Amino acid sequence: MQTRGAIGVAVIGTGYWGPNLVRNISSSSMCELRWVCDLDVSRAESAVGRYSTIRVTDDVEDILSDPSVHAVAIATPAQTHLEVALSCLDAGKHVLVEKPLAATVAEAEKLVQVAEDLGLVLMCDHTYCYTPAVQEIRRLVSGGEIGEIHYVDSVRTNLGLLQSDIDVFWDLAPHDLAILDAFLPECSRPVAVSALGADPLGTGLACMGYLTLHLEGGGLAHSHVNWLSPTKVRTITIGGSERMVVWDDQNLSQRLSLYDKGVDVLDSDASVSAAVRRDRKVSYRYGDLSAPALPATEALSAVVTEFVESITEKRAPLTDGRAGLRVLRILEATSTSLRQNGAAIPLADL
Amino acid sequence: MQTRGAIGVAVIGTGYWGPNLVRNISSSSMCELRWVCDLDVSRAESAVGRYSTIRVTDDVEDILSDPSVHAVAIATPAQTHLEVALSCLDAGKHVLVEKPLAATVAEAEKLVQVAEDLGLVLMCDHTYCYTPAVQEIRRLVSGGEIGEIHYVDSVRTNLGLLQSDIDVFWDLAPHDLAILDAFLPECSRPVAVSALGADPLGTGLACMGYLTLHLEGGGLAHSHVNWLSPTKVRTITIGGSERMVVWDDQNLSQRLSLYDKGVDVLDSDASVSAAVRRDRKVSYRYGDLSAPALPATEALSAVVTEFVESITEKRAPLTDGRAGLRVLRILEATSTSLRQNGAAIPLADL
Amino acid sequence: MQTRGAIGVAVIGTGYWGPNLVRNISSSSMCELRWVCDLDVSRAESAVGRYSTIRVTDDVEDILSDPSVHAVAIATPAQTHLEVALSCLDAGKHVLVEKPLAATVAEAEKLVQVAEDLGLVLMCDHTYCYTPAVQEIRRLVSGGEIGEIHYVDSVRTNLGLLQSDIDVFWDLAPHDLAILDAFLPECSRPVAVSALGADPLGTGLACMGYLTLHLEGGGLAHSHVNWLSPTKVRTITIGGSERMVVWDDQNLSQRLSLYDKGVDVLDSDASVSAAVRRDRKVSYRYGDLSAPALPATEALSAVVTEFVESITEKRAPLTDGRAGLRVLRILEATSTSLRQNGAAIPLADL
Amino acid sequence: MQTRGAIGVAVIGTGYWGPNLVRNISSSSMCELRWVCDLDVSRAESAVGRYSTIRVTDDVEDILSDPSVHAVAIATPAQTHLEVALSCLDAGKHVLVEKPLAATVAEAEKLVQVAEDLGLVLMCDHTYCYTPAVQEIRRLVSGGEIGEIHYVDSVRTNLGLLQSDIDVFWDLAPHDLAILDAFLPECSRPVAVSALGADPLGTGLACMGYLTLHLEGGGLAHSHVNWLSPTKVRTITIGGSERMVVWDDQNLSQRLSLYDKGVDVLDSDASVSAAVRRDRKVSYRYGDLSAPALPATEALSAVVTEFVESITEKRAPLTDGRAGLRVLRILEATSTSLRQNGAAIPLADL
Repeated sequence: MQTRGAIGVAVIGTGYWGPNLVRNISSSSMCELRWVCDLDVSRAESAVGRYSTIRVTDDVEDILSDPSVHAVAIATPAQTHLEVALSCLDAGKHVLVEKPLAATVAEAEKLVQVAEDLGLVLMCDHTYCYTPAVQEIRRLVSGGEIGEIHYVDSVRTNLGLLQSDIDVFWDLAPHDLAILDAFLPECSRPVAVSALGADPLGTGLACMGYLTLHLEGGGLAHSHVNWLSPTKVRTITIGGSERMVVWDDQNLSQRLSLYDKGVDVLDSDASVSAAVRRDRKVSYRYGDLSAPALPATEALSAVVTEFVESITEKRAPLTDGRAGLRVLRILEATSTSLRQNGAAIPLADL
Repeated sequence: MQTRGAIGVAVIGTGYWGPNLVRNISSSSMCELRWVCDLDVSRAESAVGRYSTIRVTDDVEDILSDPSVHAVAIATPAQTHLEVALSCLDAGKHVLVEKPLAATVAEAEKLVQVAEDLGLVLMCDHTYCYTPAVQEIRRLVSGGEIGEIHYVDSVRTNLGLLQSDIDVFWDLAPHDLAILDAFLPECSRPVAVSALGADPLGTGLACMGYLTLHLEGGGLAHSHVNWLSPTKVRTITIGGSERMVVWDDQNLSQRLSLYDKGVDVLDSDASVSAAVRRDRKVSYRYGDLSAPALPATEALSAVVTEFVESITEKRAPLTDGRAGLRVLRILEATSTSLRQNGAAIPLADL
Repeated sequence: MQTRGAIGVAVIGTGYWGPNLVRNISSSSMCELRWVCDLDVSRAESAVGRYSTIRVTDDVEDILSDPSVHAVAIATPAQTHLEVALSCLDAGKHVLVEKPLAATVAEAEKLVQVAEDLGLVLMCDHTYCYTPAVQEIRRLVSGGEIGEIHYVDSVRTNLGLLQSDIDVFWDLAPHDLAILDAFLPECSRPVAVSALGADPLGTGLACMGYLTLHLEGGGLAHSHVNWLSPTKVRTITIGGSERMVVWDDQNLSQRLSLYDKGVDVLDSDASVSAAVRRDRKVSYRYGDLSAPALPATEALSAVVTEFVESITEKRAPLTDGRAGLRVLRILEATSTSLRQNGAAIPLADL
Repeated sequence: MQTRGAIGVAVIGTGYWGPNLVRNISSSSMCELRWVCDLDVSRAESAVGRYSTIRVTDDVEDILSDPSVHAVAIATPAQTHLEVALSCLDAGKHVLVEKPLAATVAEAEKLVQVAEDLGLVLMCDHTYCYTPAVQEIRRLVSGGEIGEIHYVDSVRTNLGLLQSDIDVFWDLAPHDLAILDAFLPECSRPVAVSALGADPLGTGLACMGYLTLHLEGGGLAHSHVNWLSPTKVRTITIGGSERMVVWDDQNLSQRLSLYDKGVDVLDSDASVSAAVRRDRKVSYRYGDLSAPALPATEALSAVVTEFVESITEKRAPLTDGRAGLRVLRILEATSTSLRQNGAAIPLADL
């Protein structure tokens, strides 16, 4: 732990997400924020504020050449992730990259390979995986309390902000895919993807749509992503054989609800037909609801902690480059399915 | 109108839905309830109650041969709709049939043909179309207040009741399809269907799934139907170019919300590329919400009124046999898409 | 059980509440509904419906003189309760009276006395006490799970219906007072009442106001009653030393929430001052929420069952005449406090 | 406006509220934050952060003697407000004081007098008055859209934090009282106060309770304040003769709802009795709801802007010392009412 205070960090990119990284890194006692960089240096200045001692620059070289910088958090546009992250890795810096990890699977594979070759941490900022709610869901699923996963239904909608370089799937679905990657058990891993979208504004990119993961074992994980919704919705429902979970991120007083509800097929006798079993041997379970108390910690603060600890403990972070790569593989298959009018696209072994 | 009091009605079938018909028909001042019929006569007796003067029978012939019965409401299982409805039509009775209109498109076509040949009313009990909320949505859409329909997103979930003869799509989606049939303008009619479902209980029938209508003009109408949900949800969101609507049937104090929200593409110059237009010329509209006061009338009461009035006024009801037929055509295409792992199935001209 | 079927019942009064009694009594298998009476016989006819075999009358004597009527449910205006109930008791009928039990404490005392002298059941229709939620609250409080009652806060508001003969306290507060009567332990019984009201419409009667019960031990039970509220609210919050409860009757999916939350004073050392204890030794408990599954039974159906069972089992019902009398004593003290601008009015031993 | 950039500001006190002042003042372009002071200098350092150029001190004299400091924001405990604010005023600094303005009415009067004598701005940080919701309510009331104010009902509850030096009324009610002070018209000003509280933890101070303002004209403004509530509630309902308003600060998607609902007494004929008018001439208005879109600005940022602008424009701020004094007068009367078991305490002309 002695070395933690010595971890010097820089942030590159201060558009939408970068200022949040600046805020969380500068308030962490585990590292020192040494530089903030943006091609538009006035944005970097704005991110640190008028009264700051943190240096700003528009030249990445200032960071790469500073030996007191051990790690870099990158929040530039996705198309630049490969180039920026590679230069950081080449300079011996550990790297945290905003989602998506890169613009293509091929680029992400390159980053993962280089980081592993150099023995450096490559972490993807899958922020939601560090929320107390997702941590609790991980615990519930891995502990067997949910049982078999029948389905996962996610809704992630609001009005705007339309991105000019990526469609709504590449903008919003990474959150859902990263969360699923964090909690789905091996027996429910995604094996194919179907997607349908609409572009009612004629911008050439889908502004709303539906993504369905076909899970091993027959379950479905479905995500509704939408930039054209009148209401902001952030819910994930998990239907399990033992318990059902609803995560409603907008419900400040009860974010996570665990239901002891379900339909039980009583007769496991395989000799009778499905219809007969269904008819005669179904019972409904309407049990209590419980809502676990969750801490009020900010997820991005936990991201910074995990990043620094994975460096000092010389281990892979929870959402490492490979997790980012798995998410990207699904995003590419999603785009393929979109072009094929919703055809199910098989996923190579993730 | 003189003749209204003279309209004699019978109800056939008193399982789940029939008792609601009995209650609403017997409390209507526009008709006389003369018979209630069920193969299990004790169920018919239970539907009318211990203190009733309404005659019960287990023999449909009692109804067919009674000249004081002018119209029959049928709430038997879907597989029997053709036979029961045909016998009523053949006996010269007007017919109201619970959704779905019949078990197959072919059967429904037969019913529509016979009713038209005989000049009798054939009405499908698409109850939701008679709610004050859907009536208001029809008014808003047809009046141009919503603008172009970008998407419709419906969620219809709860725990149970699993049906033994039909899957969740045939059970729950008819509600959404009937509602869409009632308000979608001609320029947004459905042209294809995609569907994905899951059968986690191994009953041989999908217990939850997603149905997507591809609309003329590029929009999507999507429906999440689910018997395995911990919460009861009944919402429909309509994204339009001018206004957005959320109908939340479980929100007793604010069922319908009309949002003056949207994304406007300012530049209609077709010479610039889509990306350029998207980047430079998008503006977000975050206006007020209004929630119209809706009457508290029970929809099924309005169904009964429409049925009787269409008979006395010798006109087609709002949800006539052809509406029921259009819904069935989509249901059959849904089943086809399910078997083809979500492939988009074109709809013949509805 | 043999005799249960033989319990003949009549309903007197079919204004607002009577039709609900007619519906629940006629659907009960434990009794026979023999008469429905109203001074306006067309209202009685409307209550039983057009197809009913139940006799209607505008003459109470028809009921009093019918030996097949063993019990009478009275839903006439409060000012007439004494006369109507007395005549029924004098005729040897058991009596169920809509709340409030009578127009004055003196009248209620008379009824209680007569019923006891004659050995007849006198029950007050405190409907809410028979909801699954209140039953669960009773169980939780009496089982010690809530601990000491610190406060009870009730909100009972909506728009209308203004009563012409009683103010908002006499109309709505009896519900809260009956519920409190049902679950408050002896150590938290009410000892005084304060009330403030407003009459913004100049009708001569308070249309909204606040009633506070001072509880033995220092707690408060407060009720906000309002005919002029834009929203319908029906909530009761119970703050206990061990658990806190929120009952939200409008939240269909989660009516009852039990919170493991509280503030614990750790230092019981009486030698330190209150301020010192407060400053140093307070800890906050933010535990889980649980929402027990509740049955979906209609409360009024349980009222009918309790009425019939108390007759056949020759015992006092849960909400007997004495319970109705206790509620009336608080209502009279409420009116006194109102006239004295909110002064605390002591309650004689209830 | 030239001079705005030159307004130098200092913050004294960095306990619970001070850091929010530091954050908002340092991000304002209208002033320069020159000092942050706390008796515990490590708290001041923590408030500015590790990378700040802002000077910290534990000595108020550093601020008083710095001619580049023109204004001071004070967030120390209420008991010290008089001394700290007086020393600032004496040094010629404009002053912003956290609510309550002072510990007693006498102290507050002294501050108001001194500031007026010296021609300096004295502003009370009634933060809620600067929320977009309260601004909209002010606009609606003063524009006549609400009509006559029949009642105001506020609920302000959550679990903790118990204060060691003041009771729940002095902690939470100032918010409600400041909001009322900002929007109540002259014809509805408070004329008396009643209050009841409970101290179930035995700390010597009320932890929950109810405060009722008797308004000129017969209306009531009632506030439920509670440190022992399982849920966080922040609602204010305003019942007016023309419209009703619900402000729900926890409802992120619909903070303000304006209802076209009410009860209208049709007959203005004063010759008939109140009961007759009530009975025959009441009509219920159940109109639409509208929810105005509100900007997402942080209230405290608007407080800072108002403070600086009132200095540069040499005018009284919206929530000046006199507003703070009016709130204090009601708080003192509240304490008197508490000691007299809820007796109505007349308010001297505010």
